[in-house]
Amino acid sequence: MAQFIRNAWYVAAWSKDVGRHLLSRRILDEPVLMYRKNDGTPVALLDRCAHKLVPLSMGRLIDDVVQCGYHGMEYDCSGQCVRVPGQAKIPKTAKVRSFPLVERYNAIWIWTGDPALADPDRIMVIEHYGAPGWKVLDGGYQYHETGYINIADNLMDPAHTTFVHGRTIGMAAAGEVPVEVEESDIHVCAHRWNNDIEPIPSDRKITQFSGRVDRRQSYNYFPPAISRVDAVTIPAGQPHTDEVIARGIRTAGYKFLTPESGNRTHFFWLQLRNFDVPDYKMDDYIRAQDSTFQEDNVVLSAIQREQDATGVVQQTWIAIDEAPTKMRRMMQRMLDAERAQAQP
Amino acid sequence: MAQFIRNAWYVAAWSKDVGRHLLSRRILDEPVLMYRKNDGTPVALLDRCAHKLVPLSMGRLIDDVVQCGYHGMEYDCSGQCVRVPGQAKIPKTAKVRSFPLVERYNAIWIWTGDPALADPDRIMVIEHYGAPGWKVLDGGYQYHETGYINIADNLMDPAHTTFVHGRTIGMAAAGEVPVEVEESDIHVCAHRWNNDIEPIPSDRKITQFSGRVDRRQSYNYFPPAISRVDAVTIPAGQPHTDEVIARGIRTAGYKFLTPESGNRTHFFWLQLRNFDVPDYKMDDYIRAQDSTFQEDNVVLSAIQREQDATGVVQQTWIAIDEAPTKMRRMMQRMLDAERAQAQP
Amino acid sequence: MAQFIRNAWYVAAWSKDVGRHLLSRRILDEPVLMYRKNDGTPVALLDRCAHKLVPLSMGRLIDDVVQCGYHGMEYDCSGQCVRVPGQAKIPKTAKVRSFPLVERYNAIWIWTGDPALADPDRIMVIEHYGAPGWKVLDGGYQYHETGYINIADNLMDPAHTTFVHGRTIGMAAAGEVPVEVEESDIHVCAHRWNNDIEPIPSDRKITQFSGRVDRRQSYNYFPPAISRVDAVTIPAGQPHTDEVIARGIRTAGYKFLTPESGNRTHFFWLQLRNFDVPDYKMDDYIRAQDSTFQEDNVVLSAIQREQDATGVVQQTWIAIDEAPTKMRRMMQRMLDAERAQAQP
Repeated sequence: MAQFIRNAWYVAAWSKDVGRHLLSRRILDEPVLMYRKNDGTPVALLDRCAHKLVPLSMGRLIDDVVQCGYHGMEYDCSGQCVRVPGQAKIPKTAKVRSFPLVERYNAIWIWTGDPALADPDRIMVIEHYGAPGWKVLDGGYQYHETGYINIADNLMDPAHTTFVHGRTIGMAAAGEVPVEVEESDIHVCAHRWNNDIEPIPSDRKITQFSGRVDRRQSYNYFPPAISRVDAVTIPAGQPHTDEVIARGIRTAGYKFLTPESGNRTHFFWLQLRNFDVPDYKMDDYIRAQDSTFQEDNVVLSAIQREQDATGVVQQTWIAIDEAPTKMRRMMQRMLDAERAQAQP
Repeated sequence: MAQFIRNAWYVAAWSKDVGRHLLSRRILDEPVLMYRKNDGTPVALLDRCAHKLVPLSMGRLIDDVVQCGYHGMEYDCSGQCVRVPGQAKIPKTAKVRSFPLVERYNAIWIWTGDPALADPDRIMVIEHYGAPGWKVLDGGYQYHETGYINIADNLMDPAHTTFVHGRTIGMAAAGEVPVEVEESDIHVCAHRWNNDIEPIPSDRKITQFSGRVDRRQSYNYFPPAISRVDAVTIPAGQPHTDEVIARGIRTAGYKFLTPESGNRTHFFWLQLRNFDVPDYKMDDYIRAQDSTFQEDNVVLSAIQREQDATGVVQQTWIAIDEAPTKMRRMMQRMLDAERAQAQP
Repeated sequence: MAQFIRNAWYVAAWSKDVGRHLLSRRILDEPVLMYRKNDGTPVALLDRCAHKLVPLSMGRLIDDVVQCGYHGMEYDCSGQCVRVPGQAKIPKTAKVRSFPLVERYNAIWIWTGDPALADPDRIMVIEHYGAPGWKVLDGGYQYHETGYINIADNLMDPAHTTFVHGRTIGMAAAGEVPVEVEESDIHVCAHRWNNDIEPIPSDRKITQFSGRVDRRQSYNYFPPAISRVDAVTIPAGQPHTDEVIARGIRTAGYKFLTPESGNRTHFFWLQLRNFDVPDYKMDDYIRAQDSTFQEDNVVLSAIQREQDATGVVQQTWIAIDEAPTKMRRMMQRMLDAERAQAQP
């Protein structure tokens, strides 16, 4: 089983996908059952009856308890068995694990580590969320057949867009522009300006941008599992002042990476933007982003297959690996710290 | 490879399925070839040519011998190679294993253990078989994606019917009625009366039973591989005397479990009953039983997947596990005895 | 990973299948990328970018270099990285393996062993190729789900034709005729005459041979990977002189076996013949041979499955195994010699 950083909040599902039904999803290599109580509170339990291991998601929801579909054992929201048909005494071992959840930003966040550390304030703040002039597009989900760290590499790496995303967000000239890399305690950032270029294909289609532009991209990664890509496009030739940038076309694209297992990932995405997209173009706008991420999925799934076949992660390192390398080191430090903490 | 109790008779096939053709079926993790001689006697050989391992079932039947489809080597019913085209001498190693068979109760019974112990009298007697007033329904076959011991557990366990079989044989009120468990040298029995209840759905449909009833179920398991569930339904409120019971609606449902491998099972079923089912309802009657067993298959296959994923068989024990636990212990004693016997 | 004899030429592809596109094929358990330079020279590289292991075949061909589809790294025909977008310096580790190739007999031959030993003169000579009176039929390809040594066994073994190829090249009477086996430094040969027989079914269909015939087959195997089956058919009753044989219906069937892995094989076939086949029968003629080889594939795939399941290669040996046994020993000597050479 892969090693995961467990003392962290991961997106388990979009709010809209959890309700008065039993949803099963594998998260960090554990089968997780999710549902909502009658009062709407979301619940997450290990999806495996303590008796004979039957997935509880094959049973049914009765008010706030889950009844196993095999012998009718019932579990409350804490995972405690509260009824065994035919007997009065509940065995001590009759309980399943429950997971702390927080609902925020239209998403259900799960904590699979030490419950004592599950502080909701540790959920990352999404800037501009709900702010005037900003629109939110959420609910994006893809299943990627690759480990989440391969995706994180990709999300720290502007250099691939020219080659992988020629039809969507790629800039023909961008391949040669170097990036600058910065690091804080909690994130790594790779950013660059591409000046005096043609608008990217998706901007041309959706926003009818005409004329040449300057475009800044900032690839921020917050280990273990959140990426934010900030993009701003302004007419070419203007000074790059805060005021000009504030008037530019701006987007903040979030990806929440939740490992299903060591080499498969739930890929949730959400985007903020400071401009309108006409209704009749919205489907195209969403599709352009979904297509972009699927282009990555194709490449990253191939990488995963080669990694699985060879036992090798990477063979040579080039300049653009600076940010991913910093990110991987930050991940490793978090993993080491978590392990050290776990061993008293 | 899983450990099996080999010194026992298992059902290999229904009589109707073995004939003048080459039938291959994996039994206790061995590939077995079955066919009938010209005189009708059934034969079972290891389905793997001694030369280059080609399945003999890919060859052809010539009178009573099997000819391999690769080089024409011929094997008689004892598994002895009797012809090698192009050479007069038969190598000593040119033989395949043959298995003792007995044909009884419209079934072909196979013995994969020590042939010296293959006594036909050890085949279990099916009571009432051929007796006046009793009808036999046989030929039932299902492939279950779970180990046979998981099925045996299930067949010792009346408690699950309420939850798994709500639409077929489930009794809404039955969940809470405790069972009594008895044990003999050769079997374990869990039984209970459910009194003053509605008839089960399939009885209502098929037998037009009306009014409330008392119903007794006896779940008998004869390790390693035979289950017999006796059910009797009588009008509610009558004394439970032998005479009343004899006039009740009675069934004896047999399941013959033959491991394909450690986690896959050939599930043969046969039923005796002391009442008529009108012809135009017979299909429904059979389907109701097939559906019931498939409901179990769905749950037990999920259990097998979790067992395979976790390496755990069961996590907590409850009251209804008494009979299955006794059954598993009896199985283990048989397995230990067989191993002790095998080591001189 | 299986052991292979690597210091040998294997057919990697037919000439017609390699061009100005990126062809990926697994050969001796390595992913190999093939394409042609602008001048037509074929190239073979390891199909795995040195950076993040992306298959180069997912990228694109730009003149004579391959550009990776992820970050645009470019490799020349020697496997040397010649460009990393965004940086001037090429890391030392930025190269992929290239494989010596020779194009001959309409095929691309690959060498996966020590490049210093890759002498084109070691490619086997195909007799009569291009000679007057001889026609070549090439381009045959099948994918066989079995190890190449199982195929080699089969190609040393005339005895199976009666049983496996009854509808194509099988001779009813042939099963009992013993073969003679000869061995040189580089090949093993099993041959036999079948005299005064009916023509084989495919000869009857294609060449309208009538009357009884004498037929000689010579099964030559040149380890590690080339089989040549010579067949000559003459009217029955004539003396077997060189002159009569030269006037006979003659074919030389070549199979070039290229392991994909230890238990899967690329099966290339080519045939020379000294007679015409009318155009309108040519499709049937080709199909007859393809069908014959697929009949072997069915049997040999079953053998591979049993070998994989049991870990056993063969259980008993019979007279017809003489030639295959000599061939396997020759293979083992080559493998041992190669290993000894590799250890200084």
